[in-house]
Amino acid sequence: MKKIIMEIPEITQKLLAAKKAKNVSFADLEKAVGRDEVWIAAVIYRQASASDEEASKLLLALGLDEELAQELGEYPVKGLGPIVPTDPFIYRFYEIMQVYGMPLKAVIQDKFGDGIMSAIDFTLDVEKEEDPKGDRVKLIMSGKFLPYKKW
Amino acid sequence: MKKIIMEIPEITQKLLAAKKAKNVSFADLEKAVGRDEVWIAAVIYRQASASDEEASKLLLALGLDEELAQELGEYPVKGLGPIVPTDPFIYRFYEIMQVYGMPLKAVIQDKFGDGIMSAIDFTLDVEKEEDPKGDRVKLIMSGKFLPYKKW
Amino acid sequence: MKKIIMEIPEITQKLLAAKKAKNVSFADLEKAVGRDEVWIAAVIYRQASASDEEASKLLLALGLDEELAQELGEYPVKGLGPIVPTDPFIYRFYEIMQVYGMPLKAVIQDKFGDGIMSAIDFTLDVEKEEDPKGDRVKLIMSGKFLPYKKW
Amino acid sequence: MKKIIMEIPEITQKLLAAKKAKNVSFADLEKAVGRDEVWIAAVIYRQASASDEEASKLLLALGLDEELAQELGEYPVKGLGPIVPTDPFIYRFYEIMQVYGMPLKAVIQDKFGDGIMSAIDFTLDVEKEEDPKGDRVKLIMSGKFLPYKKW
Amino acid sequence: MKKIIMEIPEITQKLLAAKKAKNVSFADLEKAVGRDEVWIAAVIYRQASASDEEASKLLLALGLDEELAQELGEYPVKGLGPIVPTDPFIYRFYEIMQVYGMPLKAVIQDKFGDGIMSAIDFTLDVEKEEDPKGDRVKLIMSGKFLPYKKW
Amino acid sequence: MKKIIMEIPEITQKLLAAKKAKNVSFADLEKAVGRDEVWIAAVIYRQASASDEEASKLLLALGLDEELAQELGEYPVKGLGPIVPTDPFIYRFYEIMQVYGMPLKAVIQDKFGDGIMSAIDFTLDVEKEEDPKGDRVKLIMSGKFLPYKKW
Amino acid sequence: MKKIIMEIPEITQKLLAAKKAKNVSFADLEKAVGRDEVWIAAVIYRQASASDEEASKLLLALGLDEELAQELGEYPVKGLGPIVPTDPFIYRFYEIMQVYGMPLKAVIQDKFGDGIMSAIDFTLDVEKEEDPKGDRVKLIMSGKFLPYKKW
Amino acid sequence: MKKIIMEIPEITQKLLAAKKAKNVSFADLEKAVGRDEVWIAAVIYRQASASDEEASKLLLALGLDEELAQELGEYPVKGLGPIVPTDPFIYRFYEIMQVYGMPLKAVIQDKFGDGIMSAIDFTLDVEKEEDPKGDRVKLIMSGKFLPYKKW
Amino acid sequence: MKKIIMEIPEITQKLLAAKKAKNVSFADLEKAVGRDEVWIAAVIYRQASASDEEASKLLLALGLDEELAQELGEYPVKGLGPIVPTDPFIYRFYEIMQVYGMPLKAVIQDKFGDGIMSAIDFTLDVEKEEDPKGDRVKLIMSGKFLPYKKW
Amino acid sequence: MKKIIMEIPEITQKLLAAKKAKNVSFADLEKAVGRDEVWIAAVIYRQASASDEEASKLLLALGLDEELAQELGEYPVKGLGPIVPTDPFIYRFYEIMQVYGMPLKAVIQDKFGDGIMSAIDFTLDVEKEEDPKGDRVKLIMSGKFLPYKKW
Repeated sequence: MKKIIMEIPEITQKLLAAKKAKNVSFADLEKAVGRDEVWIAAVIYRQASASDEEASKLLLALGLDEELAQELGEYPVKGLGPIVPTDPFIYRFYEIMQVYGMPLKAVIQDKFGDGIMSAIDFTLDVEKEEDPKGDRVKLIMSGKFLPYKKW
Repeated sequence: MKKIIMEIPEITQKLLAAKKAKNVSFADLEKAVGRDEVWIAAVIYRQASASDEEASKLLLALGLDEELAQELGEYPVKGLGPIVPTDPFIYRFYEIMQVYGMPLKAVIQDKFGDGIMSAIDFTLDVEKEEDPKGDRVKLIMSGKFLPYKKW
Repeated sequence: MKKIIMEIPEITQKLLAAKKAKNVSFADLEKAVGRDEVWIAAVIYRQASASDEEASKLLLALGLDEELAQELGEYPVKGLGPIVPTDPFIYRFYEIMQVYGMPLKAVIQDKFGDGIMSAIDFTLDVEKEEDPKGDRVKLIMSGKFLPYKKW
Repeated sequence: MKKIIMEIPEITQKLLAAKKAKNVSFADLEKAVGRDEVWIAAVIYRQASASDEEASKLLLALGLDEELAQELGEYPVKGLGPIVPTDPFIYRFYEIMQVYGMPLKAVIQDKFGDGIMSAIDFTLDVEKEEDPKGDRVKLIMSGKFLPYKKW
Repeated sequence: MKKIIMEIPEITQKLLAAKKAKNVSFADLEKAVGRDEVWIAAVIYRQASASDEEASKLLLALGLDEELAQELGEYPVKGLGPIVPTDPFIYRFYEIMQVYGMPLKAVIQDKFGDGIMSAIDFTLDVEKEEDPKGDRVKLIMSGKFLPYKKW
Repeated sequence: MKKIIMEIPEITQKLLAAKKAKNVSFADLEKAVGRDEVWIAAVIYRQASASDEEASKLLLALGLDEELAQELGEYPVKGLGPIVPTDPFIYRFYEIMQVYGMPLKAVIQDKFGDGIMSAIDFTLDVEKEEDPKGDRVKLIMSGKFLPYKKW
Repeated sequence: MKKIIMEIPEITQKLLAAKKAKNVSFADLEKAVGRDEVWIAAVIYRQASASDEEASKLLLALGLDEELAQELGEYPVKGLGPIVPTDPFIYRFYEIMQVYGMPLKAVIQDKFGDGIMSAIDFTLDVEKEEDPKGDRVKLIMSGKFLPYKKW
Repeated sequence: MKKIIMEIPEITQKLLAAKKAKNVSFADLEKAVGRDEVWIAAVIYRQASASDEEASKLLLALGLDEELAQELGEYPVKGLGPIVPTDPFIYRFYEIMQVYGMPLKAVIQDKFGDGIMSAIDFTLDVEKEEDPKGDRVKLIMSGKFLPYKKW
Repeated sequence: MKKIIMEIPEITQKLLAAKKAKNVSFADLEKAVGRDEVWIAAVIYRQASASDEEASKLLLALGLDEELAQELGEYPVKGLGPIVPTDPFIYRFYEIMQVYGMPLKAVIQDKFGDGIMSAIDFTLDVEKEEDPKGDRVKLIMSGKFLPYKKW
Repeated sequence: MKKIIMEIPEITQKLLAAKKAKNVSFADLEKAVGRDEVWIAAVIYRQASASDEEASKLLLALGLDEELAQELGEYPVKGLGPIVPTDPFIYRFYEIMQVYGMPLKAVIQDKFGDGIMSAIDFTLDVEKEEDPKGDRVKLIMSGKFLPYKKW
């Protein structure tokens, strides 16, 4: 019955603390680094690896020592951990997969043939859509279609 | 060690067989029904419920008996079933949740506050992006942001 | 990857089909049987057992043969089945348990001492709260507090 | 075979220790903060985030340093952890979902259509019902009904 | 999301139907067979195997053909199936194991040394204790203590 | 492949160490505290909560500081942890539930109607039965029968 | 909560029924086929594949049509199915692995170096050891030691 | 994605380190203690409990302080931990249970009746069989047959 | 405790039966279809989809009706099913992933940077290496390296 | 919801840090040690054990103290840990097993008979295939075929 607390890498904690202390948004970091804010968040949460230059810009924007750049360049072991996420925000993405997985497979393979949407040659953008009935989150995913190779 | 075959509802099989026999794409159904093709696929896979009018248009486009409309209007028990999907197409969405779940939470809550993106007041569109280096799948999700209520 | 379809007992299917054919709501059944609609739904889904009299009233209201009464009186093996439900409606109750389980334990044991809220000596009512910003579901649970016995 | 001890965040432990030392009930905190005791417990267990003002009132009532307010304002990663809770108090809510999940879906969708009860735009109140046959726990949940969007 | 219905062996269903039709209790069967009612129920649910004589007496008491005796003598593959039972009646025994497993181990090994209580050389009796505050179930388990062999 | 060592609460370790150092059996503690030895073991393993008086007697018997009484009075988060226990002693109780769960449900509901045996209003006694063919463990469980409430 | 009944291949059922009808023991089959009884049982349960000659001898001994020989020669998909077996007989082997797995690894690797005992180049014999204190099962496993290859 | 390192009890590490430092094999310990090497390894890995005398001999042979004897006499919580072992050496025993579990049940119950081979009144010996085609591991298990008690 | 039998699609069974009846090896099919035998086996087991021409050649080689070609062209829901395979042949690939997954990641990312080996733009060949000490299976995998896209 | 960070053995971390500091590739280590780079990575990640000579060469190449050689010679408890890996690189090998496991079994057993490809008498090589359309990873596995022994 343990409430498992987020066990985030130490470097992630350092960067998030600096971000908070400097009151910098991810959108600000996007401008400073010249990369999308989601990708930058992925670097911070150690789900993506940065080049030296990208890491330096990020650390500079957060007022942190450049020494940390090396660690941000390492190729992380990726993934969240729990099989079914309990956090409601993250669970909704699990639910979308459960509910719309088969319909998406049907529609996309109808358009492209037998294959998959890459999650590696892949980008992910977030936009805020203001709406009088309640603002909306707009997520744009773009993944290369990879047809099954025959041999 | 059983290779579990897709156990899709009988009505889904009927509609997919008719779609194939008539050589109709989901994009064609979008025009015929006046609803997005992903939503139509969700109705066919019994992940969404259609009004009588929507169901009639869909059945007409597939050359099927209108009697089936009633069943398409029922509120289905939703979800795919297996906790971690084994199909590579569907798994990639699980992977996106595993890898980008925390970064998305950070970026979106940075913009909107504590809350979630609704998976109910939610739309999902698919576009094909032609690209000389390989066509890309573009997915646009739009979900209402729901802030946590305090009481 | 099987989409597992609701495998409900045959008798449940018969009763639901009759309910649909007669266009009777659960609220109508509440009046006919003299028991709460949630409890009646529990009988229909074979999660609760009815007395002969209750079963007869229910079958009468649905225009079904009284012979089925015996089966509705049996003590069912209860529970839904999957460990984590995939249907979004049902999942939300799982989420409430995940998010508010510990806070509820703290508040209720603060008021009552070491023990539990019974799920057997227990009632569950549903009301519709009309609201211009969107109607609300009101659920009222009442369970006997059972203090741990010492011996 | 490990007896896993509650691994609650350090801040939760601090607040609970102060609550105990000051002999303050959750009902007292409700008065002091001007928010429901369940929501306050959720803040303490880091399942909800407080505004600066709410956090200050809470810390004041517990005689704790205001410095902790910032941490109580963070948007937590929510959820309990174990898939099936072993604590009997919390398990009963899992059991209610298992036994009454389908009947509730049937009754509520009968009244509202295809959709869900929100667990985000949601409140949860606890009352003690005195009863000579044994006091009862009354739980009132109120969640906005969210109809499935079509697109 | 399938509500999995009890998939009991055909022979069990036949015996239970006969028991119901003849309105015979397990206590009656105890007298007729000369074995404890719990053990008889275990035979009926195919968790224990009967001798020809025991099976004949049981079938006679239920008015069933003696031909079934052979099947009741087979050595069944035992166990319920689901890892954590969802039925509240059965779950309580799981809960007792979760909550009192370690204390029982401590007390019993304090009395007997390192070893286990056999679940094979084992008997299980049920009694009804009438009590004005609510009748009680009395369960008496008796298992041979098996000390760990050293070699 | 980790051999997970018992992660028992610190207070449990302290009490067990004192019990060992003083060479006191659980039966001795039963006399000293005036409560059953199984319940006392449950307090020590933090599966039950003691009153101040009970805690004081227990600590006195173990020669420990009374300051620990407060902690023994807290309402613990209960349960063992692993879903299927690997320790053979504790597993046998899991096995009894697997093998005799359905037969017990049949026999007890035959005697009492639809309901459960409470695991809260519940006592558990252990006796040693000397037997020339090998001593036996006698376990007596007594739980209030809780009939399902109708509403 | 389904009691899952042994779902054995049809051919296994046929062979076991014939074995029972002819009142033949596995020891008898050992003589008839010229292979060990455990291996023969593995063929019957479709965990091993027989040559034409072996299958013919087996079918002859059971009085069955030789046509079945072909199916007994197929290379089966092996394994029992459930991750943790619930049948007490089979569970004990799981328990032996849990309790003695690490000690065996230590002792065997002490004698042989880094590697494993093959479960493929492997034999398994059963003997009955008569003993006045209770007969004993003697199991002799012989597996080729496979040292890890370096490259 | 964590590589979980063997989390062995501290005392096990101490004994293994001493064994290595002294360059003593388990076979040497067998001679020194007068017990089988597998049982000794089980004591060292805290899967079995030693008498004072056995512990003293073991500690003497390893050149360790006798103070550790007490800990080796405690009755451990047994078992490896992970449900399916990932270490190939240990997995092979899991595989043997998966593949040969049902055939063994058939053969042994053919010889002994309905019951189990005890894993408590049980011994386990290891021998090295030299073989020009590759040495073999010979494992001899001897467990008392326990017939199901009827009552 | 069910021995789950391979539940292969009907079309797979038909093709395998024809292959057996005609005594055709996968190597023969490789020649007839002009595609690798592993890919052809993947088509037969409905893990890959064939063009009309490929399907016709395959059906011709097996002496089956061309009508089946359509079904072989469908885009299957892929994957085996069980999370950890119990069949020893297939398990060894799971074991390779468990044991060599991290070392492979280290070596390949050392050579290529942060990214993955595609399992879609991927080929898999099998060769038999004759060896006096025992023939060897040679497997050659070739997957496109996909570097993580930055955006 | 914990992001579980790679919990690699301390010695692995030391060796990887030294490798990074010295800017040595696995290919360099292959030359220095005279063993394949994948096997060396397996030693470093403690999935394989090295001889004294191999360990000394490896430590020398990394500029580390020879004292560590002993630890590299120990026989590790092998395996990654999580049942389904979340890291996309490693998951692809899980996917290959899921998708191509049955086809491989069919093709290889077609060539070799009933048996398995050893994962112990096994080698694994990696090559980089330069390709204008994107470089490819070439993996060559060679495992001894082990036929099932009959007895």
